[in-house]
Amino acid sequence: MNEKLTLHEYSASGNCYKVRLTAAHLGLPLERREYDILKGETRTPEFLANVNANGRIPVLQIGDRFIPESNAACFFLADGSDLIPEDRFDRADMLRWMFFEQYNHEPNVATLRFWLAYVGEEALNPLQTAQIPAKRAAGEAALALMDEHLADHAYFVGERFSLADIALYAYTHVAEEGGFETALYPALTAWLGRVAALPGHVTLD
Amino acid sequence: MNEKLTLHEYSASGNCYKVRLTAAHLGLPLERREYDILKGETRTPEFLANVNANGRIPVLQIGDRFIPESNAACFFLADGSDLIPEDRFDRADMLRWMFFEQYNHEPNVATLRFWLAYVGEEALNPLQTAQIPAKRAAGEAALALMDEHLADHAYFVGERFSLADIALYAYTHVAEEGGFETALYPALTAWLGRVAALPGHVTLD
Repeated sequence: MNEKLTLHEYSASGNCYKVRLTAAHLGLPLERREYDILKGETRTPEFLANVNANGRIPVLQIGDRFIPESNAACFFLADGSDLIPEDRFDRADMLRWMFFEQYNHEPNVATLRFWLAYVGEEALNPLQTAQIPAKRAAGEAALALMDEHLADHAYFVGERFSLADIALYAYTHVAEEGGFETALYPALTAWLGRVAALPGHVTLD
Repeated sequence: MNEKLTLHEYSASGNCYKVRLTAAHLGLPLERREYDILKGETRTPEFLANVNANGRIPVLQIGDRFIPESNAACFFLADGSDLIPEDRFDRADMLRWMFFEQYNHEPNVATLRFWLAYVGEEALNPLQTAQIPAKRAAGEAALALMDEHLADHAYFVGERFSLADIALYAYTHVAEEGGFETALYPALTAWLGRVAALPGHVTLD
């Protein structure tokens, strides 16, 4: 990697942590630039015009080019490394778990963590409060599906640590902050421990 | 591809159409197996045990192995073809648009189409009805972001047709069934026409 790498982030975000964790496993230096999403710092005209028109973090900057979307940023960093399986089926299966993470896991597990631990339940609007039971059930279903898979597998794909594990670890290991009881899922709990014990691991904070 | 390819699908789903459109562009034969999601045919014990524990379609079957998640299935089919850019940045940028599609576009544009054109507004539960305005606004924001990008670009990535276009075309070209006015977005409308005019294109129905 010849170009400078800068991560535009809110460091408490699991999506941003994915990118730092990927870079740590690869030994890649990342310059970090912090934005306070609670103060709307990713919705300013400057941010929308220069970093991400979608007003979200993380964004990985490579020289003067930008990759939004956490899992795409991880893919950029890991492309050609052993964090992405060489086998064609396994590579697609890794992406399968990464799309599952963004569709079934993050909007439930991460959103409840954000609402309950960062915004505060008393500050939610009525539509958000009304969605809590459905997000709780959907988040529990996502954790149960992961637990079922991990009962027979050490990691999500091909019995090796990959970006699928990084993507799913990010919000699962702090799911308790959103009121989820990860201890109810023994295979998932064991996998959390395996990931955290890997050489190159870094913590969220 | 030596193994038989079977698409487990609900053919009106844009997510399933993505996989058929990818296969059509690649000239790959796909056997199709239909499930009626309105009758819960993807939540049966057989489906959950044998096809996808997540109870969703599409699922691409390759021999006796399965890839859920539409965009992962498209990636499997297109891996090594010119539907996936060779350039490292462009490859990640393609995935960026595909993750945007599943996070910002599909849960709004596709969900409103399903609720309004398939389930029927009168059959929605109160929580669904209460979410319509937020999903309308978020869907319009996704279409506006696409339109802004397409004002300067023929396709989403690298000025060439790729899986990013297939992923975003699937529900955008039928967004009007969800009450979205795509004619309000001129660059997006022109892009819809370019995609539909490509050799190898197939329609949703």
